[in-house]
Amino acid sequence: MIITFQTDASETQARAAASEAERSGLKAYVRFSGGRWAVAIVGAGRVRPGGADRLNERLAALPGVASITADQQAFVLASRAFVPETTSFSLSDTPDGVRVGGSRLLLIAGPCSVEDRSQLLETALAVKEAGAHALRGGAFKPRTSPYSFQGLGEAGLEMLAEARQLTGLPIVTEVMTPEDLPLVARYADVLQIGARNMQNSPLLHAAGASQKPVLLKRGMSATLEEMLFAAEYILSHDNFRVMVCERGIRTFENSLTRNTTDINAVPVLKSISHLPVMLDPSHSTGSWEYVTAIARAAVAAGADGLIVEVHPHPEQALSDGAQSLKPERFAELVRQVSGIANWMERTV
Amino acid sequence: MIITFQTDASETQARAAASEAERSGLKAYVRFSGGRWAVAIVGAGRVRPGGADRLNERLAALPGVASITADQQAFVLASRAFVPETTSFSLSDTPDGVRVGGSRLLLIAGPCSVEDRSQLLETALAVKEAGAHALRGGAFKPRTSPYSFQGLGEAGLEMLAEARQLTGLPIVTEVMTPEDLPLVARYADVLQIGARNMQNSPLLHAAGASQKPVLLKRGMSATLEEMLFAAEYILSHDNFRVMVCERGIRTFENSLTRNTTDINAVPVLKSISHLPVMLDPSHSTGSWEYVTAIARAAVAAGADGLIVEVHPHPEQALSDGAQSLKPERFAELVRQVSGIANWMERTV
Amino acid sequence: MIITFQTDASETQARAAASEAERSGLKAYVRFSGGRWAVAIVGAGRVRPGGADRLNERLAALPGVASITADQQAFVLASRAFVPETTSFSLSDTPDGVRVGGSRLLLIAGPCSVEDRSQLLETALAVKEAGAHALRGGAFKPRTSPYSFQGLGEAGLEMLAEARQLTGLPIVTEVMTPEDLPLVARYADVLQIGARNMQNSPLLHAAGASQKPVLLKRGMSATLEEMLFAAEYILSHDNFRVMVCERGIRTFENSLTRNTTDINAVPVLKSISHLPVMLDPSHSTGSWEYVTAIARAAVAAGADGLIVEVHPHPEQALSDGAQSLKPERFAELVRQVSGIANWMERTV
Amino acid sequence: MIITFQTDASETQARAAASEAERSGLKAYVRFSGGRWAVAIVGAGRVRPGGADRLNERLAALPGVASITADQQAFVLASRAFVPETTSFSLSDTPDGVRVGGSRLLLIAGPCSVEDRSQLLETALAVKEAGAHALRGGAFKPRTSPYSFQGLGEAGLEMLAEARQLTGLPIVTEVMTPEDLPLVARYADVLQIGARNMQNSPLLHAAGASQKPVLLKRGMSATLEEMLFAAEYILSHDNFRVMVCERGIRTFENSLTRNTTDINAVPVLKSISHLPVMLDPSHSTGSWEYVTAIARAAVAAGADGLIVEVHPHPEQALSDGAQSLKPERFAELVRQVSGIANWMERTV
Repeated sequence: MIITFQTDASETQARAAASEAERSGLKAYVRFSGGRWAVAIVGAGRVRPGGADRLNERLAALPGVASITADQQAFVLASRAFVPETTSFSLSDTPDGVRVGGSRLLLIAGPCSVEDRSQLLETALAVKEAGAHALRGGAFKPRTSPYSFQGLGEAGLEMLAEARQLTGLPIVTEVMTPEDLPLVARYADVLQIGARNMQNSPLLHAAGASQKPVLLKRGMSATLEEMLFAAEYILSHDNFRVMVCERGIRTFENSLTRNTTDINAVPVLKSISHLPVMLDPSHSTGSWEYVTAIARAAVAAGADGLIVEVHPHPEQALSDGAQSLKPERFAELVRQVSGIANWMERTV
Repeated sequence: MIITFQTDASETQARAAASEAERSGLKAYVRFSGGRWAVAIVGAGRVRPGGADRLNERLAALPGVASITADQQAFVLASRAFVPETTSFSLSDTPDGVRVGGSRLLLIAGPCSVEDRSQLLETALAVKEAGAHALRGGAFKPRTSPYSFQGLGEAGLEMLAEARQLTGLPIVTEVMTPEDLPLVARYADVLQIGARNMQNSPLLHAAGASQKPVLLKRGMSATLEEMLFAAEYILSHDNFRVMVCERGIRTFENSLTRNTTDINAVPVLKSISHLPVMLDPSHSTGSWEYVTAIARAAVAAGADGLIVEVHPHPEQALSDGAQSLKPERFAELVRQVSGIANWMERTV
Repeated sequence: MIITFQTDASETQARAAASEAERSGLKAYVRFSGGRWAVAIVGAGRVRPGGADRLNERLAALPGVASITADQQAFVLASRAFVPETTSFSLSDTPDGVRVGGSRLLLIAGPCSVEDRSQLLETALAVKEAGAHALRGGAFKPRTSPYSFQGLGEAGLEMLAEARQLTGLPIVTEVMTPEDLPLVARYADVLQIGARNMQNSPLLHAAGASQKPVLLKRGMSATLEEMLFAAEYILSHDNFRVMVCERGIRTFENSLTRNTTDINAVPVLKSISHLPVMLDPSHSTGSWEYVTAIARAAVAAGADGLIVEVHPHPEQALSDGAQSLKPERFAELVRQVSGIANWMERTV
Repeated sequence: MIITFQTDASETQARAAASEAERSGLKAYVRFSGGRWAVAIVGAGRVRPGGADRLNERLAALPGVASITADQQAFVLASRAFVPETTSFSLSDTPDGVRVGGSRLLLIAGPCSVEDRSQLLETALAVKEAGAHALRGGAFKPRTSPYSFQGLGEAGLEMLAEARQLTGLPIVTEVMTPEDLPLVARYADVLQIGARNMQNSPLLHAAGASQKPVLLKRGMSATLEEMLFAAEYILSHDNFRVMVCERGIRTFENSLTRNTTDINAVPVLKSISHLPVMLDPSHSTGSWEYVTAIARAAVAAGADGLIVEVHPHPEQALSDGAQSLKPERFAELVRQVSGIANWMERTV
């Protein structure tokens, strides 16, 4: 249920409505966006929805209320109906840090996996030089086979922290289980939740509770609604620093490309949700030679940012070599993407 | 099999190789592209491949031959290995007509179906005014249900001819069966082969034999290789005026969008084939509000043109109303796409 | 719209309702099934639906009418709402011929393509011996590549006729275009419409008009509703001898199997349609070693029959060798399937 | 790498080869199946594969070795190449408990979620009476929306334990995160890993380490190879009590059925892996009216068992009501499945 207030209504009035709902055992969220306050009211998770004792009528009668809408089937907190303006936030704990969701495109780049100190630092310096705003790199790697490289764990996180020290770039890195989250959160600026874990609800809850920014990747066969419901798990902890990321879906077309970039996802997500929308052209194509064209397309479609795999020596990469750009090719990607962004009235 | 010639080899030398192959009962195609002659040699359709009596060795020994490659599994005539430069051609019988495959983006627009004279002429004038280069409109409609509107048939073709007369725009219209082809070809500048008919081989053969330009749409679950093999049926009649068109594929994501735009198709097709690549954002999204964003993405990804559904009164359309743009929204699409095209060093 | 009549209503009453509808420019179909007459009324194809001048009310007032239902979105003639009992028919022009849709399972077997006389006759004798009731074999072959074997054409049809003469088995063979239909219909007992042509509406119309039995294969990415709408094109010519055939759909799982057998299709189709349901385990798996298991599953799920590829020397087959059974393995399939059929209270 | 031994070689010889490999830092698994010993040797997870110092040659020279095969890309422990006979195991800690993988079909039934004590006990008694061998029921529920019922947690586990006490049926219940595993393992006989968690590698590792039997469900867009790699994570802890479960995959066909039952999975998995294969017709169809037909098909295709949702009052279920059978319909399912199983030379 979403209660929107008149433009001259006050925060106090909105919070009064929230309290009213919470007295009925429900949970309420208060946001100011699009020039008006709004309150979202949702059921409380593990308990069965009880009778709301004519709550609707009491809420409708409160001062300042403009309208009340209820759609039991839909996501609420992630919707534009609740928050009309695109959410913009800093990746760090300071408000003047690198931001996403505003007029500047967010470029995240780096290796698939942290493999060793020199590989990581070399890549970090190169992507910084090329224009990236944040560094990606996996220390915990979800792999299809237990015999594939599984990441360096905490040693990898330490290297990421050193790379941040060296370059000033905030760190985006994956967390795979609630148990590891406190450790990863000590090092990371942004927690990445990977495609395989998009519906790992304990992990989503833990990421929400951490109050860290989250980059949530779409599951390889998740619908866009399911991704927004997954975001809703995080948002339900009043952690609104969530960006969602299209990374290609699994379809029958899987010989010439690894996945199918669902470019429709960009305008659809922008239309129905206020969360910033990222696109990962490395996974969504699986082949470095198509990455730049798809990066351009993503920006032209309206994406708020890109996350790109870069490796100084792709042919030696322990994972995802075929889809990793060399640093000089990434620099060219940034140049091309800037031109498109410029036309879209965005900076890079 | 593809024979490439040295850059100083002559057409006569290339034709000599072609004749040699044809004496062995095979079929040969001769093209000049990328600064050198090349000959493609293929098996001859309905007959079983016979022993090629050491043809390879005889061909390799011919003067001017630079290399011979054979890949039995792949398409040949549609490949960049045979024709390195993008094929550019006129949509009409005069070389100075509207072209595709060059530096100018091709914009085809018009209604899904020709419904009546005034609807068509109004749309034709509007899309011309907005900057379209060609007019689309269906007189024969392939429909899921036999009870849906099936098109006006020849009466529709006559209206299309009148619209061409009025606006000067060449006509792109669908043909559904070899029997109808002579009729449609009398009116159309470009024959459209629809998604449902992408693997209708008698129709592909007939379109090839007609020597008319063809817009070949991807089947809704066809791989890119299958689309190029379908093009190969047309090319095998030495009709190289073929453009291929991504129009969305069928995936599990079919509630928020009608199809999934496979934007990867654009750089992949541009990489492996010389045929111009079109994109149809109307069918690939199914919803007018996403058409412009996907049109921008297509151009940014490198597409050679767009085909867009425009209807003066979408809410009254007999087919595809939900995905049709009003003329003024199409004009805005052209404006936005021009900016992207400009950055891609193309004109509109 | 479907009008059902009271059980004691007469054919005359049903035909009176049909005439009433046809006077309003609509088309009416009259069937007796499930102990009562029913009339289906549909719009008339290429014309726009006009006002039906209070037809509903006039129909409801006719004597004998039990109920009237209208669902504008759905197929009508193929529905169980119109024809409650499974349609059973003879594959030949004599009513005592091989039948489908009754208590006996229909087993169709034979080579993918007719390759030569001895291959065909050898296979025909072997499948007859093993228990098949009809012979399949393609003379016109829809192929992905124009360079693959395209079939023997009329010469292949003549061999099929000879095989029928020799074995008494009715012939099931594919037709690819309306132009070829009169030729194919002269030789075939059952016209097969292949997966690539499931939505080839001119071909569907021609097959309907021919009044021959039709085996309609599901398109590789067609929904079940779309297949029943395709059947509706044929039924709309009052040709109710149509069987629909699941042959595997295209999904992401395409490395270990060629297609995904949609076994759900069997109970779903049996539930919503009266048309006999066939399953083709050769195409739906793409691998001979899985054919027998899926054949058993199909019968257990309730299929009315199977169509199976059999070749005396699969390793030399010009098409589909990997999925063709040797005759002795087909005999074993028949033995295994008989046991399942027996438990399902069917004979083989 | 798999080393197979001659049929007269001894366990001591096999263990000697295993020790040799482990001295090189690799991990070795020893199994006796199909009348011979075999040793599987795999890389050791998080470390990079080092040079194996001519290990192959030293292994090949050991006494009793029959052959050595290496396929770096494939799963090893789950393969029939390593273990030729189907693995059969008890669901409890006593060898005379309910088994899977032998001549008896395993029937697991029960509600989607444990909702309350009376619902669970009523269902447990009913499915026991109808012939089920084990009871399913979720206490921790992975849900798309955070606002859906999430399960009763430990209270639900206690009810499951009471139901086991009452009926003697072993308990199959889902675990969602490594943190919860010790708790769930205290109550459960079999740990279920759900479709959303199929590639949750920390959970797979934890399930392996627990040495409890595991029912591993296929991810909704996982290939069969990916499922076997997921099983490999569990097996790598020398926990071979794993059954894999087809539960329907996500395809374009999602209006008439919730998922597509990939029935091909049954014979394919049986062919390439020794793990018992289960099928869940409730999720794979999404509609109770198709469950029994698909259950029959699964058994006819060769499945080792079924897991079926049963609810005494489906219309009031907090989850999956549409696909749950009433107890009397489940009893009919058991009756029908028994007939098919009987023909397949299995008991129920």
